[in-house]
Amino acid sequence: MPHILAINCGSSSIKGKLYAIPSSSSEPLSAVATLGVSNIGAKGEKVQIKVKWSNEGDRDVDEEGDDGDSVDYKAMVPLLLDKIISSGSVQKDDIKYVAHRVVHGGEHKRGIRISKGHEEGLAEMDALSEFAPLHNHHAVLAVRSCLDALPNHTSLLLFDTLFHQTIPPETYTYAIPPPDTKIVMPLRKYGFHGLSYASIVSQLAEHLGKPESKVNVVVAHLGSGASSCCIKRGQSIDTSMGLTPLEGLIGGTRSGTIDPTAIFHAISDPGSDAGLEGMKVSKAEMILNKKSGLSALAGTTDFGLILSRLDASKVSADDHRSASLAYAVYLDRLLGYVSQYLFKLLATTPLSDIDGIVFSGGIGERGAKLRHDVLDKFTWLGAEIDSRANDVSQGSVREITVQGSKLRGWVVETDEEGLCAELTRQDFGF
Amino acid sequence: MPHILAINCGSSSIKGKLYAIPSSSSEPLSAVATLGVSNIGAKGEKVQIKVKWSNEGDRDVDEEGDDGDSVDYKAMVPLLLDKIISSGSVQKDDIKYVAHRVVHGGEHKRGIRISKGHEEGLAEMDALSEFAPLHNHHAVLAVRSCLDALPNHTSLLLFDTLFHQTIPPETYTYAIPPPDTKIVMPLRKYGFHGLSYASIVSQLAEHLGKPESKVNVVVAHLGSGASSCCIKRGQSIDTSMGLTPLEGLIGGTRSGTIDPTAIFHAISDPGSDAGLEGMKVSKAEMILNKKSGLSALAGTTDFGLILSRLDASKVSADDHRSASLAYAVYLDRLLGYVSQYLFKLLATTPLSDIDGIVFSGGIGERGAKLRHDVLDKFTWLGAEIDSRANDVSQGSVREITVQGSKLRGWVVETDEEGLCAELTRQDFGF
Repeated sequence: MPHILAINCGSSSIKGKLYAIPSSSSEPLSAVATLGVSNIGAKGEKVQIKVKWSNEGDRDVDEEGDDGDSVDYKAMVPLLLDKIISSGSVQKDDIKYVAHRVVHGGEHKRGIRISKGHEEGLAEMDALSEFAPLHNHHAVLAVRSCLDALPNHTSLLLFDTLFHQTIPPETYTYAIPPPDTKIVMPLRKYGFHGLSYASIVSQLAEHLGKPESKVNVVVAHLGSGASSCCIKRGQSIDTSMGLTPLEGLIGGTRSGTIDPTAIFHAISDPGSDAGLEGMKVSKAEMILNKKSGLSALAGTTDFGLILSRLDASKVSADDHRSASLAYAVYLDRLLGYVSQYLFKLLATTPLSDIDGIVFSGGIGERGAKLRHDVLDKFTWLGAEIDSRANDVSQGSVREITVQGSKLRGWVVETDEEGLCAELTRQDFGF
Repeated sequence: MPHILAINCGSSSIKGKLYAIPSSSSEPLSAVATLGVSNIGAKGEKVQIKVKWSNEGDRDVDEEGDDGDSVDYKAMVPLLLDKIISSGSVQKDDIKYVAHRVVHGGEHKRGIRISKGHEEGLAEMDALSEFAPLHNHHAVLAVRSCLDALPNHTSLLLFDTLFHQTIPPETYTYAIPPPDTKIVMPLRKYGFHGLSYASIVSQLAEHLGKPESKVNVVVAHLGSGASSCCIKRGQSIDTSMGLTPLEGLIGGTRSGTIDPTAIFHAISDPGSDAGLEGMKVSKAEMILNKKSGLSALAGTTDFGLILSRLDASKVSADDHRSASLAYAVYLDRLLGYVSQYLFKLLATTPLSDIDGIVFSGGIGERGAKLRHDVLDKFTWLGAEIDSRANDVSQGSVREITVQGSKLRGWVVETDEEGLCAELTRQDFGF
């Protein structure tokens, strides 16, 4: 039976799902296994390898590997493939398609197919790594691993930037002069988390029983990377991330938008090479991407921990103070984007045709207080929070405002791998 | 009769006003002369020196000096002082106070007094020049000139940052780690154009016949530098410029907010020294401040010219295309800030208590189409443009929405020098 493997390479983890392709195109894809490798590169922690079979629980893999910082990222995809084949009943030749989530796809308007002997797109993707350090390059390693291990499949590269190709020029253009260096793509806003946004639009449309082209919504995808997107008629018309995932909202370790000159006053020699193997990445970019954000403000990237420290009675005064500031800054920036995107919709679309605000990603799904504090600011527009629904955490699409609320609020669990598998099906037309 | 001289040093111009101090503190200050030097540093253009007396028209000075690029900025203030003294009836000893507009004042919460022998504050202001290249340093030169030429006066440094000291920490904090270099002030949002915003609040309060503490308004100060400010109860609670005047809106030559990593991909050696005499300013900062913005998009900083090129029948296809994009980008960014600031007010203040949107600065005062296009997006909130009032250009405070418009629109001619004089009066208590 033919299968699609969807692979999502993060900076220190690999997530994946395996789907059986049904004989009829009208039947939905069904995930037969969920896969994961975590702690890659982590000091003092063992790599965790998991394969969870949907209908063959006794065959699940849950293993500890070597120390995170002793393993090589590029060895992890072959290892994961081995675990799938050795534990389940799916054979190597059954995996006909591998869908890879790739962060940066420049101006590409659709996915790129790669198969043994047809690997031209890979070098270009790798060249874009400087714009998404630790992301694109990892995905390229995964594609090469799959080409080696699964000789008869076709890989499809699906970019986080695809969904934002509908953003108009007046929004994606930066007012900067032509570059004086050789560049691999125009320097403009691209936007990311696009597979997540597409998944959310699809799920919301299905939940509301209307076509995607009638979905008007502002989405906040809040994970260790965070962005927001203004979606009109099912299409992205603006988003907070830019040329790279740095711009916009505060992330776990990303600064988000700041005065572009600030880094030149913060560190010595900002343009010097950060020493990332094979990539042209500056010291400034590493600090803004890896040492900033919640980590810089609160000393942790764990949003749950930050929320718990808002209770002054349970923590030191210092921790309480830094967590309170981090939370307040996070909320301030989030409200800035959500509100300007709501306005962008309201300029042309009546409130009654706007589906509301969606929260997604780890922080969006679990941060009930954050959702409350955002929606609370829109009381004047008619948002009425359903506190009970907001505090419950189950259901992949759930409404967190009361019935009749003029502005609706939602939590949607994103499914990037499911969307990748679906796009693969569309691309190959089966 | 004692006088106050207000001096406003730009990068290539000096503006000023001279005020007679009335004998009673209940009488308003009255400007007795308006002063200006322009084209300083301009290639192929003569320096223009003007002194216009309010009640002694026959004494006006309107002279052409040497070529702009042959004169020394620091010689211009003494020259201007000479022209004042030689043309009018005000003597050197009559000038008791000089109020200087200074762009960056770091975290100072009030003006700084400088007099002969008490010049400690000057070195600090000069040190801040790296954050406002070509601005602070010029103001410091002007203060020194005044100390030399007017031995018996006191100078008061009034900062564009003063008005924004009410912005709360969650808004002014950047999520970046502590600097690894020696810094002269915390790296945070400061905001600029504060003297202009204070002048606008004061004028609007007077026009509306209510105290400044009841003014709730979003202001767009759109000149060659552009910013927006969210004003609640007469105080700044957010603004678009940041650590430096670069952040936020697009300016004549400033990029405004972009992905903070973009410049590292646009130019070679971004951190290298730009070679500005006596100032630590990088190549990246020079390009983002001086070669970007409208200039980079449309090849001109003249907004009127850009507006005229929107008519395809009158210009080349290339000029029409670049001007159309520049205008659209400018509008998109402006709407982004104006809308998020309106939302910030609406979160706590009913629409009926919000005084509306104010346009100011050269582009704000003359750009009728821009004002129309902004207000048009707020029709859903009840904004009703008065097209006739919007097209007329007279009156220092004029309403451009119809009577009864739920969201009001205004043009207010800012008066930074008048505000400086008023602050001087408050500071010295006369």
